[in-house]
Amino acid sequence: MKISSLQNPKIKSAVKLRKRNERDSSKLFIIEGYTELMRANLVNVEIIELFLCPDLFLKKMDKKQIEKINCDNTFFCSKSVFEKISYRDCPDGFFAIAKQKRLDMSFLEKEIDNFKNPFFLVAESIEKPGNLGSILRSCDGAAVDAMIVCDACTDVFNPNVVRASIGTLFTQPVIETSTEKLVSFLKKEKIKIVSATPHTNEVYTDSDLTGPVAIVVGTEHCGLSEKWMNLCDIKIKIPMLGIADSLNVSSSATLLLYEVLRQRNA
Amino acid sequence: MKISSLQNPKIKSAVKLRKRNERDSSKLFIIEGYTELMRANLVNVEIIELFLCPDLFLKKMDKKQIEKINCDNTFFCSKSVFEKISYRDCPDGFFAIAKQKRLDMSFLEKEIDNFKNPFFLVAESIEKPGNLGSILRSCDGAAVDAMIVCDACTDVFNPNVVRASIGTLFTQPVIETSTEKLVSFLKKEKIKIVSATPHTNEVYTDSDLTGPVAIVVGTEHCGLSEKWMNLCDIKIKIPMLGIADSLNVSSSATLLLYEVLRQRNA
Repeated sequence: MKISSLQNPKIKSAVKLRKRNERDSSKLFIIEGYTELMRANLVNVEIIELFLCPDLFLKKMDKKQIEKINCDNTFFCSKSVFEKISYRDCPDGFFAIAKQKRLDMSFLEKEIDNFKNPFFLVAESIEKPGNLGSILRSCDGAAVDAMIVCDACTDVFNPNVVRASIGTLFTQPVIETSTEKLVSFLKKEKIKIVSATPHTNEVYTDSDLTGPVAIVVGTEHCGLSEKWMNLCDIKIKIPMLGIADSLNVSSSATLLLYEVLRQRNA
Repeated sequence: MKISSLQNPKIKSAVKLRKRNERDSSKLFIIEGYTELMRANLVNVEIIELFLCPDLFLKKMDKKQIEKINCDNTFFCSKSVFEKISYRDCPDGFFAIAKQKRLDMSFLEKEIDNFKNPFFLVAESIEKPGNLGSILRSCDGAAVDAMIVCDACTDVFNPNVVRASIGTLFTQPVIETSTEKLVSFLKKEKIKIVSATPHTNEVYTDSDLTGPVAIVVGTEHCGLSEKWMNLCDIKIKIPMLGIADSLNVSSSATLLLYEVLRQRNA
């Protein structure tokens, strides 16, 4: 089907999904971009509507490549219509509406015995979708067993999380829970809780991160809450040799995740 | 002086500085935020106009604290006026217009003998101001001798670079130059050129980064250009164990910078 009117109700619904309350009530979200859609497809994210604009494709796409995206409701859009639904600076002609699938603590409780040497990243109350997405991308790179979002400020299905994660949001388990539930689980499972903070003398590279571990990073402005500072097993810091007292939260998370890898492979 | 009209020409000029052509022609730029202004002040960035909105201050500020910001032209703004000039989500009531001071290769040529063990980060054609600012913040943390911006796409005085760098833009040397000039300088000074790319088998932690070194990272979309791939001394990669083939560029830069620190301190 072709859509060339900006007033088409499908287009209006798609635009509305940028807002959290629309996503919460419909349990739907937006995926934009060919790479992101391919990754969603790999893990059977349920795509319910696909909007394409061949005029914007970055390279020639044959029918087969497009058909890889498993969706029965495909709409071909004019450039102006596509530019209305797109939330990117440089749209590539691929946009979809998909069903949210959320995981909670029951996933971890069920899967914990399948993790050889549990490796988690915990993000507490991250505010900026771009940071959350970028942390997800690093979690994918370092192959954590799960990323756990605690006391979330940002919806993990925010379009900017999807974008900054480049679709790695779909390909790894992302658990949403509260600090209370998570801490009691980690304690029970004897997983070392490692809080990243400037307020310690222990440098991250000197700390033993080879066993079961949960790396915890906190908000952009205030760092970790008192709860995590008090309940953790160790606190580690990243040396700050300049004038600033911390790195960007996604940079910090990446450093600590890859330090775990380095130590485990040493 | 008090400003309560949105039509005040000072306010109009301040808003215009968000645009690159206005910054280029006036050689001025915007600094917003108390922390950022304090850092600018530390290194004598020349502040020519200061706009304050006490109603928005996050905490009580006494006269002394404000006078630390060295500026003869201070304007007190109403909330609505301040919200017009601010480019932040949560303005803190501090905003200034300052003079740009740019460094080129002559700075490096003059200073090179003062660097004990030269340590540079080279960013080629980074597009997103947020990434460039976040890389600057990590350069400050790892205490590089200079950050070098090659073949820039993004103005280093873009307000979002200032913001994401949290003022570390001011406190370290930032050199702007071309790839050609920089490569010939690095070769002459026998500084090892280390390109970060997925297209190599050498893992970053296995590579000797203890001597004079320039870590080179490339654009968000395409990575490093052919030039840097061909002219570098070594190529190193970050292990990617998931589905994505690279990290966010500022995460990659941070990992490599701190690997230099780790090796040098080992």
